[in-house]
Amino acid sequence: MSKKITFDYWDHLYSNRTGHMVSSEIRDLLSLSARPDIISFSGGYPEVRALNSERLERYARKIIKTDSEISLQYCGSDGYYPLKTKLIEVMKLEGIDVVEEDMIITAGGQHALDLLAKIFVNPGDTVITESPSYTGALNSFKSYEANIIGIPVDDDGMITSILEEKLKELAKKKIKAKFIYIVSNFSNPSGVTLSLERRKKVLELAKEYKTVILEDNPYGMLRFEGKSVPTIKELDSKDDGHNVIYLSTLSKLLAPGFRIGWIVAPYPILEKLVLGIQSSVLCVSTFSQRFACEYFSDPLWRDNIVKFIDIYHKRRDTMLNALENYLPPGSEWSRPKGGFFIWLKLPEYLDTRKILADAVRNKVAFVPGSGFYPENGRGLNEARLAFSTESTERIELGIKTLADIVKEKIKLYKSFK
Amino acid sequence: MSKKITFDYWDHLYSNRTGHMVSSEIRDLLSLSARPDIISFSGGYPEVRALNSERLERYARKIIKTDSEISLQYCGSDGYYPLKTKLIEVMKLEGIDVVEEDMIITAGGQHALDLLAKIFVNPGDTVITESPSYTGALNSFKSYEANIIGIPVDDDGMITSILEEKLKELAKKKIKAKFIYIVSNFSNPSGVTLSLERRKKVLELAKEYKTVILEDNPYGMLRFEGKSVPTIKELDSKDDGHNVIYLSTLSKLLAPGFRIGWIVAPYPILEKLVLGIQSSVLCVSTFSQRFACEYFSDPLWRDNIVKFIDIYHKRRDTMLNALENYLPPGSEWSRPKGGFFIWLKLPEYLDTRKILADAVRNKVAFVPGSGFYPENGRGLNEARLAFSTESTERIELGIKTLADIVKEKIKLYKSFK
Repeated sequence: MSKKITFDYWDHLYSNRTGHMVSSEIRDLLSLSARPDIISFSGGYPEVRALNSERLERYARKIIKTDSEISLQYCGSDGYYPLKTKLIEVMKLEGIDVVEEDMIITAGGQHALDLLAKIFVNPGDTVITESPSYTGALNSFKSYEANIIGIPVDDDGMITSILEEKLKELAKKKIKAKFIYIVSNFSNPSGVTLSLERRKKVLELAKEYKTVILEDNPYGMLRFEGKSVPTIKELDSKDDGHNVIYLSTLSKLLAPGFRIGWIVAPYPILEKLVLGIQSSVLCVSTFSQRFACEYFSDPLWRDNIVKFIDIYHKRRDTMLNALENYLPPGSEWSRPKGGFFIWLKLPEYLDTRKILADAVRNKVAFVPGSGFYPENGRGLNEARLAFSTESTERIELGIKTLADIVKEKIKLYKSFK
Repeated sequence: MSKKITFDYWDHLYSNRTGHMVSSEIRDLLSLSARPDIISFSGGYPEVRALNSERLERYARKIIKTDSEISLQYCGSDGYYPLKTKLIEVMKLEGIDVVEEDMIITAGGQHALDLLAKIFVNPGDTVITESPSYTGALNSFKSYEANIIGIPVDDDGMITSILEEKLKELAKKKIKAKFIYIVSNFSNPSGVTLSLERRKKVLELAKEYKTVILEDNPYGMLRFEGKSVPTIKELDSKDDGHNVIYLSTLSKLLAPGFRIGWIVAPYPILEKLVLGIQSSVLCVSTFSQRFACEYFSDPLWRDNIVKFIDIYHKRRDTMLNALENYLPPGSEWSRPKGGFFIWLKLPEYLDTRKILADAVRNKVAFVPGSGFYPENGRGLNEARLAFSTESTERIELGIKTLADIVKEKIKLYKSFK
């Protein structure tokens, strides 16, 4: 949207929360990554061209021809029941065993996060996230004026000893964390996966401190190597099942253009979320839900996951190799076993926001790290690199270009030192 | 969603606003109206079967075949530009002259209302609506803990002399209304249209009291008779253009299943709304937007509006005639010149919630009036009847059935008197 210079006559009317609504650096970069001449490591765009368009056409034709009366009409606010049935089958493949009454469908993963923040967060309430964490989640929590505490991650995900300290500290101040938000597999943005041991520990801490875990799992099925770890939801189900709210999205399993996500939660929570859906969007697109239902009714969807995994696997390998080959010493990066993202740390004296400016001039884009931190001023020398979007050739070229800029910046820094 | 009995272990975690999130009577009745044996005057369901499914198939095929790369991918948060261009053409037919930079696209009309409440309403803030007003708007405003003041309507819409009194009263108490929400044409639920004189008056009052008008216009193009009245937006454009935020939806012009709405507003407001979209749903379904764009690129969409108008016109006539023929004296109803709804007032001693219970047993459904009033305890003898959904035969039968129940209730009441 191009900026128009207009005097803000309405300034006296805005709510306080608008002061907490900040623009996501990811979104601001979307316009860049849409330009075909730019090699984009910025947005986590799935490779939708890998979908078979003839099959998609068939699904669309079917739902228009045979039941447009349903698919073009309003839907119940909790979601289209037959799609729930299909998503239950999908979740089963990840070890989650639930029924239709345990879930609702949302207008994408962001909508799920927003609804959860809406029902849990009063202004000033404390919530806990990974640090770095998904910027869309941070923005949503901020829009409800949450106080966000970030817990650092290492290769095994959120560091639970620090989480425990923090929860203890909060309890002393009589502050209860409303929830702990974790992307458990191949996290956005860090690419790391929470280890089994730590999953158990987080669960134990949530029980002890009477808070709830929001387990966000958009990437779990996109594992390239290694053995999958049980979801925190699965571990919780073997216990009392009170401690985890599970959410996911079809943006990476099918396509983002349909805006379908879902939440698995205990009934009293779902009841409040449905009221949230009613007042926020009335209902989720029936056409999208019906389409997704067709997609997951065709057993070929699993072949497409295999295809996706193969594509992303190759792209990750290419990016890791290119980072290894081109980046100068003093740089580090995560080695995700799946998902979309690699997290890059450059020498501390470099600022990735400044590097981005140069990179874009050289037709490469990525997301600077600072927007992923709940705390201001952190992650200045860090960046998120999405390997999901570009071909291996362009990944190789893009990382080489980026490495050249980094080398030049280092040279410049050292010459002034 | 079937109710599961579960202890609410999470009660200590919910936000205060969940206490203000109430279930909409409309939504609770959706399950009823979905049953084909029930003659439903409840939900405002458009006649989607009147759409030409061959044409719809062609649009779907085209967007999947020729640009799945765009239509299956994420979209910019402000909306798909080419759809804005099409919606501008649609608005022009209603006398509104804007450019793409003046608007954003939302995930339906409810989403537009929710975003507007989000950026304007602090807990305890005052907003003004018609009384009765659209229950979805009331629920959304309540979820942001607004204090809602209802202004009664008559056949010419919101009574502006009462609005003026109220604004004066508020000003004395140093309270500023954040906005005045009006469905200007064939209002939901009353069916009435705001007269030209009153449109001018509302605009004058908004300027004088430095508040803003939310003009919601989902039904304006569905006029059966009489001359159309300029939108408040059009009147405002001839003035300084600062006083009206205009919103609408494709749910009645195309189909609700795609969830597309839009907002026209000055740039500083749009900027905040886009941040609201980012944190609430990230972006609106690209597939839906692309589909709508195809639909409105085909000049035949106008023929379909003519078809819609013809269908709803006949249904309204049938319902008005049936009300005239069957309802006992002491009942009154509105005579809308377009749209979907008739507002019914029964004798004061009758309770439409109790009548609904009997009606459903006799396979007729409608929405009791109380849910449309911002104030508790009002509209108990009133009801909203949607004539959009059922065939003329079923409307005739449904109203006859309803009238028989009303007559019986009156007899019962009189026998106890």
